[in-house]
Amino acid sequence: VPLGKAYENQDCAIARALELIGERWTLLIVRDAFHGLSRYDEFQRSLGIATNVLSSRLRALLDAGVFERPDGPRGGYRLTQKGRDLFPVVLTIMQWGETYEQGADGKEVIVMHAPCEHEAGAQLSCEHCGEPLAAHDLRIEPGPASSSTLTPPQLAAWGPKTS
Amino acid sequence: VPLGKAYENQDCAIARALELIGERWTLLIVRDAFHGLSRYDEFQRSLGIATNVLSSRLRALLDAGVFERPDGPRGGYRLTQKGRDLFPVVLTIMQWGETYEQGADGKEVIVMHAPCEHEAGAQLSCEHCGEPLAAHDLRIEPGPASSSTLTPPQLAAWGPKTS
Repeated sequence: VPLGKAYENQDCAIARALELIGERWTLLIVRDAFHGLSRYDEFQRSLGIATNVLSSRLRALLDAGVFERPDGPRGGYRLTQKGRDLFPVVLTIMQWGETYEQGADGKEVIVMHAPCEHEAGAQLSCEHCGEPLAAHDLRIEPGPASSSTLTPPQLAAWGPKTS
Repeated sequence: VPLGKAYENQDCAIARALELIGERWTLLIVRDAFHGLSRYDEFQRSLGIATNVLSSRLRALLDAGVFERPDGPRGGYRLTQKGRDLFPVVLTIMQWGETYEQGADGKEVIVMHAPCEHEAGAQLSCEHCGEPLAAHDLRIEPGPASSSTLTPPQLAAWGPKTS
């Protein structure tokens, strides 16, 4: 099953996003791009993956508009605005991994917020009222393009309220 | 290659997190759990995937401590704290998908912040100073468990400063 069709009956923004960024290695390529890597051989050396896999992922990222090649087909890959807007995804995954999957020696990397020179963390806040978000405060509602398949559980709050 | 070994030379919290949540379907199962689904047949009906795939994913989520079965092996699956702490990952992926991969009819779902009754969005802020985070304000530094493989590009700011 080609990945582009893997989730086709999942009528959901998460599923659509995962068609691209859920492909194995893709988010690690994006991570490397945030770290400043741009050339094919830099990605290849960093990731150590088969060249056909890397080429396929880079092609998909170009086709999706996450990368561009401003210097032409022999130049480096650069994140577009769409690509840079993946940093919250990369950062929240990194922070979850550091919290729950870290090795015995502690964090391998620390993400610093340069303007204040402290650890950035990854606090999610409501864009309207600015309060920190918690899963149990979120409610899913059907949007303009909602299909009729939303059922009551999918309209419930996200997760139980816990102490 | 079993997924558990796929990224073993990627010494990074993102890679370790992706060993679990990067597996195909896993984040959609977690999404469904946030939507209130808990029973095997509910996940199966929602996702329409092969039962062996669903069983494998649920087993991995149990083993990783993302799900628990408080009512025993015949009871439903429930997100643990570790699992609930995946909501920022699910939310940022959803918001990116709604922004960049939405269909022509607009959003399919809207995430509301119940306390203020407005769209929640997904604003990331610095946990120390509270300012909104931007990729170009972040700097990666080696942590206590850093290997010696961090090279200058990986210590650079995340992404170019753009207007």
